[in-house]
This record gives sequence, structure tokens and C-alpha cells, in this order.
Amino acid sequence: MSRDALQFSESDRGFLEPHLPREGSTSDNDLPFTTLTFATSLDSSLALSPGARTVLSGPQSKAMTHYLRSRHDGILIGVGTAVADDPGLNCRIAGVGGYGQDGLSGQPRPVVIDPTARWEFSEDSKLFQLCREGRGLAPWVITAVEKPSPQKQALLDKYGGRFLSAKMLRTHTGGHQVDWRDLFTTLKSNDLKSIMVEGGGQVINSLLSPAYMSLLDSVIVTIAPTWLGQGGVVVSPARRFDEGGNAMSAARLKNVKWYPFGEDVVLCGQVIVSD
Amino acid sequence: MSRDALQFSESDRGFLEPHLPREGSTSDNDLPFTTLTFATSLDSSLALSPGARTVLSGPQSKAMTHYLRSRHDGILIGVGTAVADDPGLNCRIAGVGGYGQDGLSGQPRPVVIDPTARWEFSEDSKLFQLCREGRGLAPWVITAVEKPSPQKQALLDKYGGRFLSAKMLRTHTGGHQVDWRDLFTTLKSNDLKSIMVEGGGQVINSLLSPAYMSLLDSVIVTIAPTWLGQGGVVVSPARRFDEGGNAMSAARLKNVKWYPFGEDVVLCGQVIVSD
Repeated sequence: MSRDALQFSESDRGFLEPHLPREGSTSDNDLPFTTLTFATSLDSSLALSPGARTVLSGPQSKAMTHYLRSRHDGILIGVGTAVADDPGLNCRIAGVGGYGQDGLSGQPRPVVIDPTARWEFSEDSKLFQLCREGRGLAPWVITAVEKPSPQKQALLDKYGGRFLSAKMLRTHTGGHQVDWRDLFTTLKSNDLKSIMVEGGGQVINSLLSPAYMSLLDSVIVTIAPTWLGQGGVVVSPARRFDEGGNAMSAARLKNVKWYPFGEDVVLCGQVIVSD
Repeated sequence: MSRDALQFSESDRGFLEPHLPREGSTSDNDLPFTTLTFATSLDSSLALSPGARTVLSGPQSKAMTHYLRSRHDGILIGVGTAVADDPGLNCRIAGVGGYGQDGLSGQPRPVVIDPTARWEFSEDSKLFQLCREGRGLAPWVITAVEKPSPQKQALLDKYGGRFLSAKMLRTHTGGHQVDWRDLFTTLKSNDLKSIMVEGGGQVINSLLSPAYMSLLDSVIVTIAPTWLGQGGVVVSPARRFDEGGNAMSAARLKNVKWYPFGEDVVLCGQVIVSD
């Protein structure tokens, strides 16, 4: 057994089961089963600052995250997180490929949303180290750039990753806004039947907007009993207004279950789609 | 029985008991037992905007708040909340004075922190309506103003309320900062042996600062499975830095218990005092 493999007990798996893609199920539409999952402080911060290694949740929650990864075909993050954290994005649950088993079975596909192809990955990036060690899959990088750099293309080719293009909308400030429906359709057509969206703040807030919340099948939030304080990387969707122009709550969950889990609590539910 | 009296079952009371002032206990110091309690959204908002009537938590949580009020001698809020919400600040649990019993037993003393005496209360204010109906006590208004308006003084005198002066510190922006230790000592010396601090955002964030967090004996936070969205009234203490100048978490809880409660969760704990 690999010494950094994580254990997640059968008894703890039970409460998550109703909120996960069913194993072996085939979906009847063009979209993958999509789970939005992240851990925040009481003041809804993901981290003290972008790239700050912030230990928020306890060891049980960490094992849960890796178990969730084992249950999805792909893990999706935004480029901000990729640049700031140099994440591994593999699954370390005991028994998956690289952690007690040969091959890469159970390892999810890392998917990085990088509209302008600004992520400067290299052989030294954690993701590619894990590829070399047989402990993870190479990433798919989603971009609007038509011809990304040949060096990066070569690196992805070497490890079995790829660039994928997806439709991007332009925001009024000139930035790129992912068309999430188009993106998820693309991922499904590339055989990712389930996607776990992990962050960062921009990606999460975008998916919790009225235009996209219907794409989410499940939401799993871990909350730690800590206030990180003002200035953190905050999950909070854009303000919404009702027909009368009055502010209203931006997003609500239904079928809510709370599971105390060590010092943390895990919230599972589904977004109420009102439109 | 008064028709708007609230029920809070014995079985629900059990989980709160370890986090409340003990009935009949006498404290051995100059400070009251102080409970910080409030309800937020997942993105740590108390309300959509100051004064917006934001129904966040469910009916069970509302009854819990009134039960908590019955267990404290005083309820404390900041002037911002008093001005914005025109709150009643009484206790509507079935069986207290005004709600099934004669007199005012079990009714907590409303305490409003108003450094510049800007709260323009009148006979029409909810608090004084409740006084007239025999359903609540008149407020104590804590101020740094030496001679508040005679009209307001007369109104307080009429209903048995009062102005109390407390030491205020000046902030670098010229505002007032309550010296919470001095204030709580004053309240205790005026026979309020337990205080429930309910808000708003400024009061809560101030009490969660390193200078004052040791004054808190208990913290009870209700979280609703809703994101209010950006621009709300947010609970998030000021950023803290460690000796090396690095950002650190602002406040953490110990002896944490999470209680799923209807659609909401209730978090009980104590602030870890590190200094």
C-alpha cells in the first residue's frame, strides 16, 4: 500500500451516496452528472489569499475529497487555482490506480479552464510529476486560444493530455466567460460522464449564477468552524434582483442534509432552479 | 396563551444546554456570561442589505432565538440594527411574561449600543409598543453623549429604560469603538449576569477581534442553506497576521458541535483565545 494513500470508511461513504453519480448509470442527455464541491470557512472563504496554502478542514474532510474524486470521471478547476496552487488533482484513496492498484483505474481526468492559455505548466508541475509516477492522469486544458504554445502542446502530448477548445463569451470588461453548457457538453462527448467542480472562487460563483445553476446535479460543501477574516478568496455569487428590482437571495439549496464530520460539517443538497 | 407565542420543545433544548449560562449560577468575576449568536447564509451574510427584512432561517431557528433570549438577562445590538430593523428584542417563548404569564419574568433587557445617540426612537418604535402591551422591557441605550436629548430621556424614563454611559475609544477614522470589557463590566454591575449579543455585523466583527474575543463565553451560529450573494451585511472579522506578517485565520472555535435543525444547521462552540 502506498504510504500516502487515504482511507475513507464505508460508514462515512453512506451519507454521500444519494448525492453522487450512480456507478454504471448511463445518463440520458448530453450533459455529465456535475457535482460542485468545495470547503470554506464560516465566512465563506476558500483560502486566506489566492495561492495561500490554507488548511481549513480536518483530515476526515481531506479523505472525503479524495473519495469524491474516485467517484467522478473528471475534476474541474479554473486556471487561477492551477496557477496559484500547483495542484495534484489526483485521487489518493487506497485501492485506486497508483495507490494500491496497478494502472490508473479510478483516477479522474484533471480539467483546467484556461481561456487565454496563461497556465505555464512544465515537467515540474505537480500534475506531471504524478503522471510520471503513475499516480494520475495528464490534464485536459480548456482554452479559447487557437494555437497554444508548441512546448505546452508537446508536454501534453507526451503524457496523454490535450488542449480542448470551448466556446467562450466575452464579458463587458473584456474578459472571458465560459459557456458552461457548451463546456460540459464537450466534456460529456469526450466520455467524461461525471464532473466534480472543485474551484476556485470565480468558477464556483459563475456556476451558482442563474444562467448556469441548472447544470449542477449536486452540491457538497464542507464548512470549517473558523473565520478566515476579511480579504480572503470568497464564495458568494453575484447579487440577484427580483422583477421589482429588489435584491433577492442568489441561490438556495433543496433536499438539504447536514452531516457533522469531525470538527467540520458537510452540507449536501441541490440548487433550486427558479427560472 | 398569546397567539404569537412560540414553542421550543424540551428535546430541542437539550443540545443548547451546555452552551448556555447555568440558571441560578453566580459568576465569580466582574463579567457577565456572554453568548454571541446570529444567523447567516452560506456566504456569511446576515441580511441582503442593512434594514432589509431577510428571512434566512426556518421557523425552528426563530423559536430557538426566542428560547435563547429567555435564557439571558440582556440582549445586545448595535445602533445600526436598531435604526435599520426597528426590532422588538423581546422574548416570545410560551410561558414568559406577556406570553402566557403575568408580569415580565423571563423578558430580557434590550441593550442598544449607540455611541453618538443617533437612534431616533419614539413612542411608535416597536420596543416601546411592546412595553405598552406588557410584552417587553424598555431598552438601555449605551452612549458616549453626555447629555442626550430631553425628549428621548423622558421617553426612556416613562417606560423604565435608561441611558448608560460607557467608555468609548476613538478609531483612526474618528469613529467610536466600544471598549467591550468596560461595557460588559458596566452591564454586570447593573445586574445583567448574562448577555446575548445578536448583532449586527459591526458588533459581531468587533467582538471576534483578538482584543475582545476572550469576553465571549459561547458562540451559537445558525447557517441557512442559501447564498445571499455579494453586497450583503457580512460577518467576517478583520484580517489577522502572525508575527511573521503572514495572514492567519481571524478566529477559530473549539468544543464544536453541529446540530442539523430543519433545513439549517446550528453551530455551538467557544472561541479559541490565542493571546
